[in-house]
Amino acid sequence: VDKPDREDSGFTLTTGRIEALADGIFAIAMTLLVLNLIMPDGAAGVIDVKLHTLLAGQAHKFFNYILTFMLLAIFWIVHHQQFHRIKRTDSRLLWINIFILMFVALMPFSTDIVGNFTGSTTAEIFFASNLLVLGLLFMANWAYATHNHRLVSPDLDKEMIIRGLRRNMVMPVISAIVIVLAFFIPQWCLWLYLLSPIIQSLRPFRHSS
Amino acid sequence: VDKPDREDSGFTLTTGRIEALADGIFAIAMTLLVLNLIMPDGAAGVIDVKLHTLLAGQAHKFFNYILTFMLLAIFWIVHHQQFHRIKRTDSRLLWINIFILMFVALMPFSTDIVGNFTGSTTAEIFFASNLLVLGLLFMANWAYATHNHRLVSPDLDKEMIIRGLRRNMVMPVISAIVIVLAFFIPQWCLWLYLLSPIIQSLRPFRHSS
Amino acid sequence: VDKPDREDSGFTLTTGRIEALADGIFAIAMTLLVLNLIMPDGAAGVIDVKLHTLLAGQAHKFFNYILTFMLLAIFWIVHHQQFHRIKRTDSRLLWINIFILMFVALMPFSTDIVGNFTGSTTAEIFFASNLLVLGLLFMANWAYATHNHRLVSPDLDKEMIIRGLRRNMVMPVISAIVIVLAFFIPQWCLWLYLLSPIIQSLRPFRHSS
Amino acid sequence: VDKPDREDSGFTLTTGRIEALADGIFAIAMTLLVLNLIMPDGAAGVIDVKLHTLLAGQAHKFFNYILTFMLLAIFWIVHHQQFHRIKRTDSRLLWINIFILMFVALMPFSTDIVGNFTGSTTAEIFFASNLLVLGLLFMANWAYATHNHRLVSPDLDKEMIIRGLRRNMVMPVISAIVIVLAFFIPQWCLWLYLLSPIIQSLRPFRHSS
Repeated sequence: VDKPDREDSGFTLTTGRIEALADGIFAIAMTLLVLNLIMPDGAAGVIDVKLHTLLAGQAHKFFNYILTFMLLAIFWIVHHQQFHRIKRTDSRLLWINIFILMFVALMPFSTDIVGNFTGSTTAEIFFASNLLVLGLLFMANWAYATHNHRLVSPDLDKEMIIRGLRRNMVMPVISAIVIVLAFFIPQWCLWLYLLSPIIQSLRPFRHSS
Repeated sequence: VDKPDREDSGFTLTTGRIEALADGIFAIAMTLLVLNLIMPDGAAGVIDVKLHTLLAGQAHKFFNYILTFMLLAIFWIVHHQQFHRIKRTDSRLLWINIFILMFVALMPFSTDIVGNFTGSTTAEIFFASNLLVLGLLFMANWAYATHNHRLVSPDLDKEMIIRGLRRNMVMPVISAIVIVLAFFIPQWCLWLYLLSPIIQSLRPFRHSS
Repeated sequence: VDKPDREDSGFTLTTGRIEALADGIFAIAMTLLVLNLIMPDGAAGVIDVKLHTLLAGQAHKFFNYILTFMLLAIFWIVHHQQFHRIKRTDSRLLWINIFILMFVALMPFSTDIVGNFTGSTTAEIFFASNLLVLGLLFMANWAYATHNHRLVSPDLDKEMIIRGLRRNMVMPVISAIVIVLAFFIPQWCLWLYLLSPIIQSLRPFRHSS
Repeated sequence: VDKPDREDSGFTLTTGRIEALADGIFAIAMTLLVLNLIMPDGAAGVIDVKLHTLLAGQAHKFFNYILTFMLLAIFWIVHHQQFHRIKRTDSRLLWINIFILMFVALMPFSTDIVGNFTGSTTAEIFFASNLLVLGLLFMANWAYATHNHRLVSPDLDKEMIIRGLRRNMVMPVISAIVIVLAFFIPQWCLWLYLLSPIIQSLRPFRHSS
């Protein structure tokens, strides 16, 4: 079973392979979020504890689960929107993406922290920093690929490049604001992230007009 | 290694990408179900406990494992049957699917609850609610995509659209019945889900006649 | 982004989709095997325990890890060899495959049992039964697909069909023998599985002559 | 839905299938690394412990996470660079790859060991041995496939074959050096691995000149 001979270019990692690894890591990170919810098992003594008390006591963890799942989904969408335009890879773009995946895989841990230490300034800053770095890396990914149309089609519209940058700035800006607010109102920080999908659906931040 | 230039449509997430993420999350959720079975290790003191007593004591967990694995498999089949017909995506369909995957990834947790708190009304309602929401989201996915042939081929048979809706109603209806019955016979609820594959194999609910 | 219109056949799950789910579940099950090795962390008091004693004490677990990883790899290879020939799917074949994946996902649990209860007859029978069922399901998959060339190419050689059945009988036969021997020499059972790759490399069991 | 008839060659596992399984196992192993970071939950008594002390106390684990993620990413890149050239598979190449994946899946365990037993000679040797075996298997993979152009295109440049071997020697050599140094300066060993990406970016070790 022979494969058709591919061109002997120096660097050989196609965008398809990066997308496959990214899909895998996103899928696993999103599914591992649920492990933060695992509760003490009913084997010894917990039987008479009221289950609905246990579940209600984790209400904030369910909120975190939904929130983080959505945030990771948004990043996953951005990843595919960027790679829809990125036609080639090089060594630097590859490393930007490895760091993106490193911070994607860290998200279940950050969610665990923020779920176990509710209202803690340190926890909120840790979580926000994870998102801040992710957001900045996505900006870097897009800026590097589109600079002088380095790795995108030469026909790609300038307007679309700038639109992509603008969209990618939403999350870092929100995360930076959260880091400041975490010193004053740590218990309300997580709600701010809900602004991200709302802002990105506004006209100037939408993917297409 | 250049990719062929794709059309510059506004929204760029193909159905293929959603299917890839869904395959990943379904596969992980189905495999994580087995973690509910992990038993105390034999290192300290458990050596003289009779292993077959330990295994027999988990018989209901094995039943849960088989049942939930089958239910997730059924949803996975439905997902592919729907996306076999869905030809395009838009932003709303994408979000319906993200919520579908959120509740798929929650299934190992729900199975854990129902396995650790056997016969508990709260546990059965939690599990049934997870399936109810999943079932309704799948109905929404199909209804949204087929309404005025929005995202399916214009040639798609009306009969096939209605058949799809009818099939997708089986699980929400069973889950709703379980939620009611959980107040009276919580210990028998899980068996009701076995009706789902049986009903769906009846002629009026089959995928094709 | 439209997909080309596919034929309106009744049953719509392609073999490609089954292979994708199978690849995912095999990959996760194989990677989860390593969780059986996770040791108590060195945080509290374990620091002065000699690490090499801890590692040496798990020598049989490392053996189990290598063995089960190889067995799952062999099943994975068989899965692809079978689907290389299977050209169509139907509802029954799909369900055979769902049960195959159910018992693949159970393997990390079975490995855990056999690792924590070394030399226990019950543990060896549990592990062997998992492999026995898997082996029989793979035989069923091949027998069902090739019977009257139901789901394979009409040109597929009779000789190749029988060869496939013969190869698939190796694992069930070994597992059945282990189940009997587990009553007499439970501590040596696992070594018998090493016969599987050896026998399958003999001429009459090889995939091609 | 028929698949086009494929050629009836004896051995039927395509390189594509191996790459799919490898992508899955790499993605899971890389994501499981984060489980090494999971900390005691804040439910009982830990609330008043200062979170930032807990996090700072794990600083070396974060370093391990970043380092191992990068090392696995480098191996993943090498895997794709090799399979970009490898056009066919045979039974031996398949088994080399199964052993590669076995030691990839072992990496989260090795990282756990080295994270829980910082500065332990045994731990550093265990971690280095894992990398040493992985590195040697990757060398074997490339040497076996390119020997007499066995599984690569007959046009593949000799120079490129040798370059591939030279690149693949970097990791085994570093790991071997670490194994020796672990007896003298176990606490500094992990930093040596950072030499790997640096050396591989030097001209004589680069993938293309």
